Amino acid sequence: VSAPASGAPSTEAVVDLLGALAYGELSAFAHLADDSGLAPTLSGRAEMSAMAATEFGHFRRITERLRELGTEPEDAMAPFVAALESYHALTEPSTWLESVVKAFVGDGMAADFYREVAEFVDPQTAQLVGEVSVAAGRAEFAVREVQAAIAQQPWLGGRLALWARRLVGEAISQTQHVLADRDSLTALLVHGVGDLSGVAGLLARLTDRHTERMVALGLDS
Amino acid sequence: VSAPASGAPSTEAVVDLLGALAYGELSAFAHLADDSGLAPTLSGRAEMSAMAATEFGHFRRITERLRELGTEPEDAMAPFVAALESYHALTEPSTWLESVVKAFVGDGMAADFYREVAEFVDPQTAQLVGEVSVAAGRAEFAVREVQAAIAQQPWLGGRLALWARRLVGEAISQTQHVLADRDSLTALLVHGVGDLSGVAGLLARLTDRHTERMVALGLDS
Repeated sequence: VSAPASGAPSTEAVVDLLGALAYGELSAFAHLADDSGLAPTLSGRAEMSAMAATEFGHFRRITERLRELGTEPEDAMAPFVAALESYHALTEPSTWLESVVKAFVGDGMAADFYREVAEFVDPQTAQLVGEVSVAAGRAEFAVREVQAAIAQQPWLGGRLALWARRLVGEAISQTQHVLADRDSLTALLVHGVGDLSGVAGLLARLTDRHTERMVALGLDS
Repeated sequence: VSAPASGAPSTEAVVDLLGALAYGELSAFAHLADDSGLAPTLSGRAEMSAMAATEFGHFRRITERLRELGTEPEDAMAPFVAALESYHALTEPSTWLESVVKAFVGDGMAADFYREVAEFVDPQTAQLVGEVSVAAGRAEFAVREVQAAIAQQPWLGGRLALWARRLVGEAISQTQHVLADRDSLTALLVHGVGDLSGVAGLLARLTDRHTERMVALGLDS
């Protein structure tokens, strides 16, 4: 933790950040599209397909930025394929509601994390990361689906709360794997937050936002 | 075949046309997204995911038009779910190249058919159908993938030609099922083409365009 927080992050770190985010969007696209098949109604299916299409639009914007930085998107994404595929393999929804909670809670966590990290990079990259790390409209949809289901079958609340905890656990676990592998990303994060109290603050903010989402869904966090 | 070709088609027929097209786009979205997992490279996967996202954009525009016409998209799509799901179930690609040929040949045929039928409806609907029945950029991608594969493994040509014939056969079969079920669509088509020679002309044009696509791929039609 020797470099000052104001030091410009390496291009390698920015490319890593965008590469992880790009593959995150591409894999989210594929998994949301797949999960849309769990929807009990055509309108639910259309809503989740719309989220998938939105993620693909984000993917396209990030790959454009990577090309501007002189990097082939495939090369930038390659180091993060295994971790993201592991996350998805370990959190494959078996019901429609699990897929809705995953889309809201899992992607919400990821978006919060990327928005935090975006503060440590150049303004143009930061703006892009901020723009692709919002999930417009998703909250209302998820809240409506989950609250309606729990109103009819209250026991579902406990099960979905457990499911959300699993999502959080696997996300943290895969993030740790990635950071252990990618020194430049770790340096970006560590220099960005500054010191241990910075790390604690970051984790506290991520936890708070996760709790807000769980409250919105009517689930214990 | 009693109504004049110039007679305005019923709203029911227009809603049927848009409903079939909407579900066609939504199911194409899901299947292209799924098939993108067969891609041997991340760039191939991104290309097919882009096609899926484009189809979803089309889906959204068609559902907006249906709502303008006072119809819930789900209601308009419902009669066509079975036929389109049968088509996809009977033409599930088992290799990346099969999925590429399906995206190009299958969706190309469907687009040609819808563009023909669009000439028989009101100008606003016709324009929309024309706009969502183009597949920009898809041709180059498909041609590149298939020609490169055949250059390395010439025996693939015969297999992919057979596969394309199966796509055509299943598409015709499911279209016949739909027309047998939906009098308003059949009336739209029959009144539109006018008479038997009109039907023959339509089929000849569809066949010609299919042959052009097969030639572009380097496959026997």
